[in-house]
Amino acid sequence: MKLSCSQSDLNTALQLVSRAVSNRPTHPVLANVLLAADEVTGKLRLTGFDLSLGIQTSISASIDESGAITLPAKLFGEIISKLSNDSPLVLTSDEVSQQVEFTSKSGTYQVRGLLSDDFPELPLVESGTSLKLNPLLLSNAIKSTLFASSTDDAKQLLTGVNLTFDGFGIESAATDGHRLAVLNLKNILSQTNDINNSSEFEKFSITLPSKSLREIEKFLSACDTSQPINLFIDKGQVVFISFDEIITIRALEGSYPNYSQLLPDTFSNILEFDRKEFIASLERIAVLADQHNNVIKIATDSSAKIIKISTDAQDIGTGFESLSVSFKGESFQIAFNVRYLLDGLKVIDSNLIRLSCNGPTTPAVFSPINSDVNFIYLVMPIQIRN
Amino acid sequence: MKLSCSQSDLNTALQLVSRAVSNRPTHPVLANVLLAADEVTGKLRLTGFDLSLGIQTSISASIDESGAITLPAKLFGEIISKLSNDSPLVLTSDEVSQQVEFTSKSGTYQVRGLLSDDFPELPLVESGTSLKLNPLLLSNAIKSTLFASSTDDAKQLLTGVNLTFDGFGIESAATDGHRLAVLNLKNILSQTNDINNSSEFEKFSITLPSKSLREIEKFLSACDTSQPINLFIDKGQVVFISFDEIITIRALEGSYPNYSQLLPDTFSNILEFDRKEFIASLERIAVLADQHNNVIKIATDSSAKIIKISTDAQDIGTGFESLSVSFKGESFQIAFNVRYLLDGLKVIDSNLIRLSCNGPTTPAVFSPINSDVNFIYLVMPIQIRN
Repeated sequence: MKLSCSQSDLNTALQLVSRAVSNRPTHPVLANVLLAADEVTGKLRLTGFDLSLGIQTSISASIDESGAITLPAKLFGEIISKLSNDSPLVLTSDEVSQQVEFTSKSGTYQVRGLLSDDFPELPLVESGTSLKLNPLLLSNAIKSTLFASSTDDAKQLLTGVNLTFDGFGIESAATDGHRLAVLNLKNILSQTNDINNSSEFEKFSITLPSKSLREIEKFLSACDTSQPINLFIDKGQVVFISFDEIITIRALEGSYPNYSQLLPDTFSNILEFDRKEFIASLERIAVLADQHNNVIKIATDSSAKIIKISTDAQDIGTGFESLSVSFKGESFQIAFNVRYLLDGLKVIDSNLIRLSCNGPTTPAVFSPINSDVNFIYLVMPIQIRN
Repeated sequence: MKLSCSQSDLNTALQLVSRAVSNRPTHPVLANVLLAADEVTGKLRLTGFDLSLGIQTSISASIDESGAITLPAKLFGEIISKLSNDSPLVLTSDEVSQQVEFTSKSGTYQVRGLLSDDFPELPLVESGTSLKLNPLLLSNAIKSTLFASSTDDAKQLLTGVNLTFDGFGIESAATDGHRLAVLNLKNILSQTNDINNSSEFEKFSITLPSKSLREIEKFLSACDTSQPINLFIDKGQVVFISFDEIITIRALEGSYPNYSQLLPDTFSNILEFDRKEFIASLERIAVLADQHNNVIKIATDSSAKIIKISTDAQDIGTGFESLSVSFKGESFQIAFNVRYLLDGLKVIDSNLIRLSCNGPTTPAVFSPINSDVNFIYLVMPIQIRN
């Protein structure tokens, strides 16, 4: 392999594909990025793959000799990022000695790589369901629910986000067993998808790992929103294609819990209040609640049209805050993990929010008011002894 | 104690004095800040003290009842910082139950404190030598040398910065045994000090702990530079006084090594080059050097008027960079810990720098060119086998 390319193109590409390189690779070659130069296309293709998430991109290069090799992602990326952009970079690899030499105006580096043959193939789906989607909508669908997934690997499917496609829209959902976030985007596929007859579209759902989705969300939010992104979904695999980039992500196996049955049908108490004021009060109360067990209580005072948010961090101190609310129902008291509340309230895109609940032991639901976004955040209360 | 004050004044004061509160206090009360309200002066005085560094400041408050108590610095500071600034804050303490209640527009907090009697007295020096100094000059003197002090507590005096006062200027020096940074500020005291007859001034030096100086440096660099800061120096203690703030710092005991004898009298090789280019080359080379043992080599090529900076990270890779230099002397090769070089080069305030050395086993000295700052950075080379 012999080529010359721009430092800034190579740097951007390396930063992108490195997102799919594991910090703790199970095999040495998975700490590397795959470089493949093709004289015919004049492209240098870069790939990172942690066996779950794969990212591939290409840059234009002046290629004297085709070839492929893998290089340590972190080390190679760091040196390239520190080189100046004022002259082209020359890369030469010797596939036998597995050495890559790169020369810039100021110096020359030789880095030991590994054979490209050892690098696993990216699983590309070419059949299955295909969709076109606005990257911003997809990024929002992921961001609004991802935080509610579990970080405990033992919880398997709950470490992912469940996406349901029905031919017209997407429903994104995540739960860790204590809280559940669901965003429903309706009528977004019918405008853009390439399925001619949506009545033939069979509703299906897939659960993707949150760790990989976090990287995809960053990628999507930086995409050009005027261009739809292509999704190919097949058993166990989703592939995103956008211009020069291909992203593959392996789905988690198993059937996701039927979360819709968790939602109570009716609510006897409905409170409406300002989201930012509520967040500010919770953040102050959290300073004390975090010292003890993260528990805060919310008590209504229907006559005064306020709620009292309080915490008791035993020997350390106590705090309470009042917040004006509009209130329908009976007086009640309910307790939550303050961190769960703050996580969900921060993603709700609305100034006013609604808290719907029945009592201190049944699920409470936070939702936006006057928003065109169909979002709910269900939180299980904490049982308190009086 | 009963008072009301502004949230923003209290917040600023708490952030400042908290810098002197230890993260790992040896006694519970040292995790607290001391609050003392005086009805007569109308001031609330706040103090943080880790037994080495002490910071005291005062804010105006409307005081109904004098009194004093201590409160957990971190917790109290965090809640206060999150309160809004749109209404005054009311603080009431019950010295018997050791509870403090503070009320803002949105809520009320009660925090458990500790008796003020248990809080150690700040050692205030009122005799000894007194000086007036520009805070910016003092902050630069600390910043330019502090990084070279040792982080190993077993090295005692070397964990500090040695300051020498001779009646006209200050010399600041720090060494960890592998490198030495010395900044000499001449003729800065004669303009501003309050000593009537400087010929009577006896030269003396004091070593202050780097950990505390790091906080003082931050404080000084935020000071109004048009107002001199007052220093009172007595056996074992330095006190800085500026408007409402008093900072005390306990000196390290013992006599600091006579570092001036480490400086070679003459140099057979003198190189001059661009500081930023040298730093950029070292930072690239460091990516590889950090993988192995941080060692980089510098070799002169007097005919080509360049130096070659290289590293060999064994199985990982090798790198070299060339840099134009102006050179006087014979060809030589010398090796350094790249992190030591970068630490020192980053504080040198000059575009052009000089490297003076005799050979691969004797101290090398970096110094600024065309700068009015009298600074040297001495680094011991690493012995290399060929």
